[in-house]
Amino acid sequence: MTKTVVIFSGGMDSTVLLADVIEQGDEVLALSVDYGQRHKKELEYAAATCQHFGVTHEVADLSGISRLLGGSSQTDPDIPVPHGHYAADTMKQTVVPNRNMIMLSVATGWAISQKADRVAYAAHAGDHTIYPDCRESFAQALDRAIQLCDWHELELWRPYVGITKADIVTVGVGLGVPFGQTWSCYEGGDIHCGACGTCVERREAFVDAGVEDPTEYRETPEFAEP
Amino acid sequence: MTKTVVIFSGGMDSTVLLADVIEQGDEVLALSVDYGQRHKKELEYAAATCQHFGVTHEVADLSGISRLLGGSSQTDPDIPVPHGHYAADTMKQTVVPNRNMIMLSVATGWAISQKADRVAYAAHAGDHTIYPDCRESFAQALDRAIQLCDWHELELWRPYVGITKADIVTVGVGLGVPFGQTWSCYEGGDIHCGACGTCVERREAFVDAGVEDPTEYRETPEFAEP
Repeated sequence: MTKTVVIFSGGMDSTVLLADVIEQGDEVLALSVDYGQRHKKELEYAAATCQHFGVTHEVADLSGISRLLGGSSQTDPDIPVPHGHYAADTMKQTVVPNRNMIMLSVATGWAISQKADRVAYAAHAGDHTIYPDCRESFAQALDRAIQLCDWHELELWRPYVGITKADIVTVGVGLGVPFGQTWSCYEGGDIHCGACGTCVERREAFVDAGVEDPTEYRETPEFAEP
Repeated sequence: MTKTVVIFSGGMDSTVLLADVIEQGDEVLALSVDYGQRHKKELEYAAATCQHFGVTHEVADLSGISRLLGGSSQTDPDIPVPHGHYAADTMKQTVVPNRNMIMLSVATGWAISQKADRVAYAAHAGDHTIYPDCRESFAQALDRAIQLCDWHELELWRPYVGITKADIVTVGVGLGVPFGQTWSCYEGGDIHCGACGTCVERREAFVDAGVEDPTEYRETPEFAEP
């Protein structure tokens, strides 16, 4: 049986991936990362979803290094979360320096110690050009490093890299994913704010997929209207 | 002025590297990593050396993930530190899964947030074939990923990759490195044990360089005799 470590934030994309890997019959281990993110709330959603699916869940506590990764609205309480589309220049404030490599390297370390066959993560075609570490060239170089970091060759599996977030919604509907139990909002408030980059993107994905959005949003600014 | 983040354990190799980068006139930031290692003592040596050189020193606290990186004598108190030469099969117990990628990814994240030009680390030609993540092919793939993880291209600088540990001793002597203020031993006791892989290697480096070893060792087993 294939043993797979899924990098699992508790958001839409990684929840669909988790359901997908379970459906394929893999032995699944889910890893969330606490990097001192403002929207720590996603970790509660992640835990609840893993309980729902009955899979092993661990949280990698990296909160001790968040002060070294300054300059992002996601780890610095003094920098507000920008509102608007991801395409806007202000969204650069949400970049956490080298976040993807840090998360993947820790997940890979855990995968090696668990003798897993692959590490899966939900990078997708819509991942944004404001994030340098969402570039395909970066991902390919890191894939190669991950293959070589242990004697036993590990696969880095990115099954959604060629599809959009709306496509992921469609895949999730087919798998019966409880989207109401996923968390996206960067604000991390009681309910989704509806106005930050990740909320706007979430709304658009449901609209583009033609699927009813179960999310309760605090506001619907003009730029976020369907 | 070139701004350089040095991955700095407090051991011989990275202390020479630190002195070397300072000598070159770089603005230097030193980063040590607490990954829950048994020989945490190296962190005290690291702090003292940074104070000696007057450079900024940070410790990345990754102790929260050490339980995910099981199976190594360096993070699991139930697994004893093996004695003997690095070449011996038992030394595999000292491998911390994906340690190098984790350390380098965190150092890179800090370097990006500090707007540094390069990350320096003291990999050398004698780094051991028991460590898959000391392979040149791994390092090259990771170099490439690090170059691509931010818009501003970072250099990963490994100036000792073509020389041996004995050569590093010679470089350090030229730079006036206080070798008595460095820590290698994996046991992390009051003084160097003299018998673990890293102590044996330390002893050999001084002998091969023809430099007097200032280290006090607890024992000198037959296999560690010069």
